[in-house]
Amino acid sequence: MTGTLYGIGVGPGDPELITLKALRILQRVPVIAWPAPLEGDSMARGIAAPHITHEPIEIPIRMPLETTQFPDRSVYDVAAQEIGTHLEAGRDVAALCEGDPFFYGSFMYLFGRMAPHFDVTIVPGISSLMAAAAAMKSPLAARNDLLTVVPAPLEETALSEAVTAADSVAIIKVGRHLAKVRRVLQNLDRHADAQYIAYATMAEQTIQPLSEVAAGRAPYFSLILSHKRGAAWR
Amino acid sequence: MTGTLYGIGVGPGDPELITLKALRILQRVPVIAWPAPLEGDSMARGIAAPHITHEPIEIPIRMPLETTQFPDRSVYDVAAQEIGTHLEAGRDVAALCEGDPFFYGSFMYLFGRMAPHFDVTIVPGISSLMAAAAAMKSPLAARNDLLTVVPAPLEETALSEAVTAADSVAIIKVGRHLAKVRRVLQNLDRHADAQYIAYATMAEQTIQPLSEVAAGRAPYFSLILSHKRGAAWR
Repeated sequence: MTGTLYGIGVGPGDPELITLKALRILQRVPVIAWPAPLEGDSMARGIAAPHITHEPIEIPIRMPLETTQFPDRSVYDVAAQEIGTHLEAGRDVAALCEGDPFFYGSFMYLFGRMAPHFDVTIVPGISSLMAAAAAMKSPLAARNDLLTVVPAPLEETALSEAVTAADSVAIIKVGRHLAKVRRVLQNLDRHADAQYIAYATMAEQTIQPLSEVAAGRAPYFSLILSHKRGAAWR
Repeated sequence: MTGTLYGIGVGPGDPELITLKALRILQRVPVIAWPAPLEGDSMARGIAAPHITHEPIEIPIRMPLETTQFPDRSVYDVAAQEIGTHLEAGRDVAALCEGDPFFYGSFMYLFGRMAPHFDVTIVPGISSLMAAAAAMKSPLAARNDLLTVVPAPLEETALSEAVTAADSVAIIKVGRHLAKVRRVLQNLDRHADAQYIAYATMAEQTIQPLSEVAAGRAPYFSLILSHKRGAAWR
């Protein structure tokens, strides 16, 4: 019997925002894998830390952030091989994912490599999208709203079209694109009501009107919510 | 001390897809409120049922599905008053919500009435969106994908524009709009790869290629996923 690979959404940051299902699987698998930068801590492993007490085998998937083409596919090839060895030996493996595995998660790179050969089960997680709306006390979408998730790295025209077309937008992966996003929202007269959040549900959580966010680079784990109904919605 | 109103996302259906935080709050509040049809069971109460063992005071919010203007606002006015009485007496109240409270949830009607007067905390839940993608083993969005959530009741042109503009679309609230949605996807040559799911994570869960779904009315709790990259993505 080969093992099962579990893609486990550990939620946005607060360790209490993990599901019972994810917890049950996490606490019994003999092997866990998790993404991390080349140096430093893994956010996903950190979120799961309070729940892992049984000393599983651990497979860090360390990704250099500065490569000619991000992500470095060879890193996933190596991880897939190591995980495959455990699965073939009958050991279940849990791959930890921040938020939800299939919502802009790096888990898809593992999924693409493993799903053709092994049994893979996805355990959905609380995504930063829902966590942000909850923390801001601001409904994401209601009734027949068109809700669009817009990655900030898109170029300015695409961003502008996406914001215009939707009733409600969540702009994710803000990072070094903060100035561009701000310009787009200003040009559409949507800047004054937009709300910014970084590190939703974590100790460092920051919520601000976008108009009060200092210029410069925002964290990668930040997002901006804007609704056509504006601040009245809040 | 007045009590706190908690908007609790109980997840998409599988009782194990509730968070530890939601569970902790659910199991200690003296009062729970939940939405239900005029006759019959509450889905949210059903999902939470295995976790509620302490016999709290229960406030059903029963909504007639056939009214001249849905929802009947007076039902929420009455519920808000009853909940307010408990909060003023210092009792915390948990309002149960299917999926996530702020993702197209009816909780916003209560939120709008209570937030100006009382302390309200939102506990995010696993939405049907993430649950559907996990059950289908189909990533929702990755990299710089534009992801749009499209309510099926929108008129045909709006649906068509939304599907065209996004890389990945989730069409929600399919219900009696199945034929229209199918026509839109056919006209855009996106029908063959679209995937349909009803009752994600529940015992009745059904996953089918949209092309194999029988004509007629789909359940309200069904959704359709379609990605520009098509079936290769799966």
